[in-house]
Amino acid sequence: MASKETQSRIISRSIELYNQHGTRNISTNRIADECAISRGNLHYHFRTKEEIIQAIFSQIDKEMEEGWHDDYLHPTIEHMHLMFSRSMKMIWDYRFFYRKLTTLLHNDPHLKIRFMDNRRKRVKEIAAFFEAMLDAGMIEVKKGQVEFDSFILISWLISDQWLPYLDMNDIELNEESVKKGFDLIFQILELYFTVKAEQVNATTATGQS
Amino acid sequence: MASKETQSRIISRSIELYNQHGTRNISTNRIADECAISRGNLHYHFRTKEEIIQAIFSQIDKEMEEGWHDDYLHPTIEHMHLMFSRSMKMIWDYRFFYRKLTTLLHNDPHLKIRFMDNRRKRVKEIAAFFEAMLDAGMIEVKKGQVEFDSFILISWLISDQWLPYLDMNDIELNEESVKKGFDLIFQILELYFTVKAEQVNATTATGQS
Repeated sequence: MASKETQSRIISRSIELYNQHGTRNISTNRIADECAISRGNLHYHFRTKEEIIQAIFSQIDKEMEEGWHDDYLHPTIEHMHLMFSRSMKMIWDYRFFYRKLTTLLHNDPHLKIRFMDNRRKRVKEIAAFFEAMLDAGMIEVKKGQVEFDSFILISWLISDQWLPYLDMNDIELNEESVKKGFDLIFQILELYFTVKAEQVNATTATGQS
Repeated sequence: MASKETQSRIISRSIELYNQHGTRNISTNRIADECAISRGNLHYHFRTKEEIIQAIFSQIDKEMEEGWHDDYLHPTIEHMHLMFSRSMKMIWDYRFFYRKLTTLLHNDPHLKIRFMDNRRKRVKEIAAFFEAMLDAGMIEVKKGQVEFDSFILISWLISDQWLPYLDMNDIELNEESVKKGFDLIFQILELYFTVKAEQVNATTATGQS
């Protein structure tokens, strides 16, 4: 098996195992066994568990870099639904990561720097998207509403801390319970939609997932 | 020093040390040294770090049991401010606990059972308070607003996960940054106030902290 192929196999098997059992319960030896490669071979690619998790984060980062940068070109509710599904899928696919986010970042300062770099970019992209939604007259902050900055803050908080919250409350992690967090964010966001946004959405609703 | 006195001294010194350095960095030996008692004496009172943390939680639990049960008898915005300050003080006083809540509960199943028992009681009390606020015409759910259940859920989420969120974003923990989480909750809650509630509040505003 070519070196690059082995590497990507280690990564995808690690994601599966971590999602199932958590990072604490899965040793690098176990990953080697499950990939049917020698421990030496695994060690050649990744010296530590931290390196595996960093490689997984690189994959997350790459997915976001490639897919999330031109959202501001599509300022519609329909596109926003797509953005939500995309984030939800990401959190589900890498649930071990988002589940223990605080701990993982706390234990690996290098990962934390990279995560926060990525986060700054995402915050800018999301700000650009909502800027475009405002410009297009799709959202507006009505009198007496929660300031939009506060809303964005609440959204990040729900999205980052939803999985730990589910764990704490012994709620089973599945696609439905993960989606509930996004439904919450959407419920607040909806309050900012303009009549125009609803109309545009109604005409394209048939194409909406 | 009497046995009970020693015990309460161990607890209060532990809270201070945990708040300053985190539970991971403070051994029971260190606590014994800081209390100027022998390690054997500490061990006589608390066999493990978990037992100390459980004793601290008993103190949290007791404070809540004593002070929080008759909120529903005071359905006013003024009293709600008091409830907010009280929760904020609690989270600040025991910040080590709320900072690592998920991890602490994950590591000690017995603590988790007790925490969730306490939580169920608090949820009931808060529901009773808001029930009373509705009955007294102080809050109402206006058309197009986020359902009140969702609001309550968002509030718990912000209140439980605010300290981990501050840590993750490298925001310094101080009374001001802790207060910001409660301001967020209040911003949403405000949307449900009725005109009557605002008027009652205005007449008592001078006495409000």
